[in-house]
Amino acid sequence: MKARVTVTLKSGVLDPQGKAIEGALKSLGVAGVAKVRQGKVFDIELEGSDRAAAERQLSDACEKLLANTIVEDYAVDYD
Amino acid sequence: MKARVTVTLKSGVLDPQGKAIEGALKSLGVAGVAKVRQGKVFDIELEGSDRAAAERQLSDACEKLLANTIVEDYAVDYD
Repeated sequence: MKARVTVTLKSGVLDPQGKAIEGALKSLGVAGVAKVRQGKVFDIELEGSDRAAAERQLSDACEKLLANTIVEDYAVDYD
Repeated sequence: MKARVTVTLKSGVLDPQGKAIEGALKSLGVAGVAKVRQGKVFDIELEGSDRAAAERQLSDACEKLLANTIVEDYAVDYD
């Protein structure tokens, strides 16, 4: 079973890396970009086919390690 | 207009960061995780509403800056 966890900064949290990318795109001559925010993505393969158990394990993993829930949001999509 | 660019390592490319996360999850007692691969996500706001132009600008941005197409794949989703 496969899942994709996407971790993004909460709105309101400053994102200097996104700002830097915005600036770099402008210097490279890529027009039309108004705003960039950067996040992380984790492609995870889970053992077993029990979806409820997998969801529990994954939300556990997100809370403990993958996301800092003070400043970040996470979303989980299953294939 | 909003778009999300997801950049992931091509299969076959080693991902030591993903391996480290796998190990960390095991030490934290999160069971059932078979494999982790890490990638990046960029949430991008584009100016204007011309979708064709936006697609050109974004694929330009991906090729020039956001992804290293030798070792990474990218996917673009529009909201």
